[in-house]
Amino acid sequence: MTHQGAQQPTLGIDIGGTKTHAILLSASGQVLAQRVRPTEVGTDGVIAAALAAADDCLGSTGLVRSDLACVGVGIPGQVDHRTGEVRTAVNLGIERLDLGARLSSEFGVPVSVDNDVKAAALGAAAHLGIGDLSYLNVGTGVAAATLAEGRLVRGPGNLAGEIGHIPVAPGGVRCVCGQLGCLEAVVGGGRIAARLAPLAPAVTLPTLVAAAAAGDPDAVAEAGVISAGIATAVQLLVLTQGSALVVLGGGVIHTCVGLVDLVRRELAARANGSDFLASVDLAGRVAELPSDYPVAAIGAAMVARADAEAAAPASLG
Amino acid sequence: MTHQGAQQPTLGIDIGGTKTHAILLSASGQVLAQRVRPTEVGTDGVIAAALAAADDCLGSTGLVRSDLACVGVGIPGQVDHRTGEVRTAVNLGIERLDLGARLSSEFGVPVSVDNDVKAAALGAAAHLGIGDLSYLNVGTGVAAATLAEGRLVRGPGNLAGEIGHIPVAPGGVRCVCGQLGCLEAVVGGGRIAARLAPLAPAVTLPTLVAAAAAGDPDAVAEAGVISAGIATAVQLLVLTQGSALVVLGGGVIHTCVGLVDLVRRELAARANGSDFLASVDLAGRVAELPSDYPVAAIGAAMVARADAEAAAPASLG
Repeated sequence: MTHQGAQQPTLGIDIGGTKTHAILLSASGQVLAQRVRPTEVGTDGVIAAALAAADDCLGSTGLVRSDLACVGVGIPGQVDHRTGEVRTAVNLGIERLDLGARLSSEFGVPVSVDNDVKAAALGAAAHLGIGDLSYLNVGTGVAAATLAEGRLVRGPGNLAGEIGHIPVAPGGVRCVCGQLGCLEAVVGGGRIAARLAPLAPAVTLPTLVAAAAAGDPDAVAEAGVISAGIATAVQLLVLTQGSALVVLGGGVIHTCVGLVDLVRRELAARANGSDFLASVDLAGRVAELPSDYPVAAIGAAMVARADAEAAAPASLG
Repeated sequence: MTHQGAQQPTLGIDIGGTKTHAILLSASGQVLAQRVRPTEVGTDGVIAAALAAADDCLGSTGLVRSDLACVGVGIPGQVDHRTGEVRTAVNLGIERLDLGARLSSEFGVPVSVDNDVKAAALGAAAHLGIGDLSYLNVGTGVAAATLAEGRLVRGPGNLAGEIGHIPVAPGGVRCVCGQLGCLEAVVGGGRIAARLAPLAPAVTLPTLVAAAAAGDPDAVAEAGVISAGIATAVQLLVLTQGSALVVLGGGVIHTCVGLVDLVRRELAARANGSDFLASVDLAGRVAELPSDYPVAAIGAAMVARADAEAAAPASLG
């Protein structure tokens, strides 16, 4: 017996701080449609925007909600993947929201909810066709997610990946979390913007690497700080979890033209001083995705599929 | 159909720098016998000591090699768990050894080989009855291994866990790997011994924490360096992988009386300055095992069992 839903499409929804992106994925993994809506804040706003983006997507292909096998949602904040509950998604104005249950009653099909960075790791794995990777999101917040043999590393409470709050510059500036010198305080988008503000309009995030290459001393210093911080995150992820690749994504990566190459150069320089690091080839493990690939929305659909497969009765043949 | 070996005992062998420890584990997980032999260096010596410890163990229960379901071996160095090949086990005088194949032809049953720290993580999980933990080995070398939902995180080439070579003291002393300020250069046993040498006999590793409590300034400084380094490793493991527990083990932990409490105190102090860290409760995640529990030998047996189960044809009933 084939379990129900095996031939039906899956909807993935990525709820970001500014945009809500829905994609419709066929059973064979093809993107059938995608639509973007502005995110609305607050619990009701978040749900309204998600439903609007979803219905836009379905409507464009002549499908309705009940045609779906399942729905997956990626959202920032602390997400209990087992229950679908979201807590403390500050930028979305959410203190606590039972997102899985609310959307499930709207769609009438199973809805899975996961942290957006964990969803992105699955989306990256689907694109690259490998099962051992980390996804490092460098945006306003800094966090990572890792797949080991195709499965997300979560830990109880889905805590895994909070590497933004590992101090990498002891004695450095204070992080929003209260510690000094956290990775997020070094490479988080908000902190970078604050450091660049006195330099603008001469140096901005999109022009930073070019200005550094042209010899602007402030740009050289700032580009060095950012690329070293991201390089340290890559080193930390690979040595801790053995990831074959670390996929870089998020607003800082997509805005700062040339940054990924600087990170690779920094890692190559570190390998010059260490046979061990050279053998690990950190620079060769850095990857990025096309900026128009909807990594978190596709990953959200993969989360839903994985849950549906795990819940399906074992096939007898 | 019950697959062969399900009722037969498993042998676990932990090959350490000085001792080779064999344990015989019943199908229900009971330790039937255990024996220790001095490790011999070189490829033939390592194998001879492993066979001697194994035969001592079997002999004490009236069993022979062919009574075993399978054999698991934990050994330091770079271990390709898929092939059973060991490389660069410096302390054992091994450059390259096809350990799995050599022992398999001796025992006449399947032999699995894994890195000793990865084996220890499985042994710790078996003792504690949980599936999401990290094992942090602080000995001459410093490395970790993590289980996520009961499965070891390996990465291609079994690289995961090499956290000893993450710099935690930028600008610190040079590590054997060539980098500056690696975790291993701060808390590795050899480096601690070198720093304590000028202080001995007044302060040694077993008396360090007591001397610090009594106010010896050198001991206070050194105990602070070691406990902060281990605390950083715990923080790094939990925030990266979400581990419910970090089990501390290895020579430095077992020799330095009171060190684990100092690590907990350091982590509690860090939580005082950060609501985020307080919510994660790092101090409450630190665990240790009874020092006489043969964690790596039992874990080696678990590695073999997991491989045997994965290789067994799926049961139809």
